Amino acid sequence: MPAETTHSLRVRYNECDRVGIVFNSNYLVYTDVVATEFWREHLGGYSEFNGLGLDVVLAEANIRFRRPLEFDDEFEVRASVSAVTARSLTLEFDFTRAGEQIAEIEISYVCVDSEQHTAQPIPEQIRSVLEGD
Amino acid sequence: MPAETTHSLRVRYNECDRVGIVFNSNYLVYTDVVATEFWREHLGGYSEFNGLGLDVVLAEANIRFRRPLEFDDEFEVRASVSAVTARSLTLEFDFTRAGEQIAEIEISYVCVDSEQHTAQPIPEQIRSVLEGD
Amino acid sequence: MPAETTHSLRVRYNECDRVGIVFNSNYLVYTDVVATEFWREHLGGYSEFNGLGLDVVLAEANIRFRRPLEFDDEFEVRASVSAVTARSLTLEFDFTRAGEQIAEIEISYVCVDSEQHTAQPIPEQIRSVLEGD
Amino acid sequence: MPAETTHSLRVRYNECDRVGIVFNSNYLVYTDVVATEFWREHLGGYSEFNGLGLDVVLAEANIRFRRPLEFDDEFEVRASVSAVTARSLTLEFDFTRAGEQIAEIEISYVCVDSEQHTAQPIPEQIRSVLEGD
Repeated sequence: MPAETTHSLRVRYNECDRVGIVFNSNYLVYTDVVATEFWREHLGGYSEFNGLGLDVVLAEANIRFRRPLEFDDEFEVRASVSAVTARSLTLEFDFTRAGEQIAEIEISYVCVDSEQHTAQPIPEQIRSVLEGD
Repeated sequence: MPAETTHSLRVRYNECDRVGIVFNSNYLVYTDVVATEFWREHLGGYSEFNGLGLDVVLAEANIRFRRPLEFDDEFEVRASVSAVTARSLTLEFDFTRAGEQIAEIEISYVCVDSEQHTAQPIPEQIRSVLEGD
Repeated sequence: MPAETTHSLRVRYNECDRVGIVFNSNYLVYTDVVATEFWREHLGGYSEFNGLGLDVVLAEANIRFRRPLEFDDEFEVRASVSAVTARSLTLEFDFTRAGEQIAEIEISYVCVDSEQHTAQPIPEQIRSVLEGD
Repeated sequence: MPAETTHSLRVRYNECDRVGIVFNSNYLVYTDVVATEFWREHLGGYSEFNGLGLDVVLAEANIRFRRPLEFDDEFEVRASVSAVTARSLTLEFDFTRAGEQIAEIEISYVCVDSEQHTAQPIPEQIRSVLEGD
């Protein structure tokens, strides 16, 4: 089974806007926090990429907003691998609050070398972790 | 011709991450700043919605990252109407720096009443402004 | 003894700047997160103020930066009451990482009514909690 | 006369909180934006420090909040040198909106070398600019 990680978060006061709901850009902040936990769980940390002279950079982010989050809400985000190609991978992030769907975010990352930022193949040992082999 | 607005911005230091490029969530902050200018130019301000007991809320945001932005970069964002339906509208935001494409963001908004947040028709006077009639 | 609360946090990637350390404004975000936990522990939640028609607003914030925080660092913040007057209270926030001092922040809040935002006496039941009577 | 710079800003929607006013941490973001303009005007850019193998890091930040800022407010920040010592400098930032005082922030920076982050003397050519000689 492809790799996945679930992480819990709580809405901070400063993340809410004038109408009392989480401002849209913060969903990408939450997603990044959960991606950090995903890499920690499956690779021992994102620095595993850096150790190989690599980085992953965002190519695409697609967000579907279903229901608003409010101040102090506790919610869960489940990150799972939805696609892996030679040089890119796509993670899906499902946001839920007490079982209710809040948002879905799909992010495509490209693997690049840390110096030139040119696309590079995803190393076999990372690919096999992502694909759950 | 459908309504459009172009606005210039400069990257703030705190918007950049450890590798020296703008962190992804800030693209949605920039988009929101430009949407504010779009409403100012075409409606006299977003408060025109509130005056009619309405709000627009995000349903979808799709981002394509083309090239990174760095600290202190000046760039332009052109917002234009790409679709209007009975109760929703889609704005496209094109980010460029010195003519070079940086990112494209498409955001779909739903028109709702300010109290119950149920979907409402976009008022005729606003629709005609958006469609450039 | 005056009321106090200790809360643990972890540095998010987007909170770090180009030189790899937490950008200064985020210390006030952390402080606010810990203040929320302080009110939860001692009053059952900040909404206790709102229930009385009151709010607390910042009058002053004084920060001493001792050592930088880096991405993924875990750290603790201890919030404690350092002064209570008729209409204001001061909380001190001590930031430590593995026992090492990171920063000290002192924030003075004024109690105001939620409508007019004019200064109001701190209710006796809240004062006695703050002073640890 | 000591160096000073005035810069205008407008409140972004995402900088406001649930009660409709600018969240406190954003004052330090504004201050940083104005510091960037201060260095641009007086040194040709903050990179002048980096070119000398130096950086300035925050030691202290003291904020007095006088009146709230609201969404879309235009305001001015005047940055001026209030003290220069061998290895540190203090800038004062006065926030006003239509002549009305909004906030005062005093920030002390220490000059450090970019590698080891140990305190270093402020170079004579920079000191004389700061002091307005």
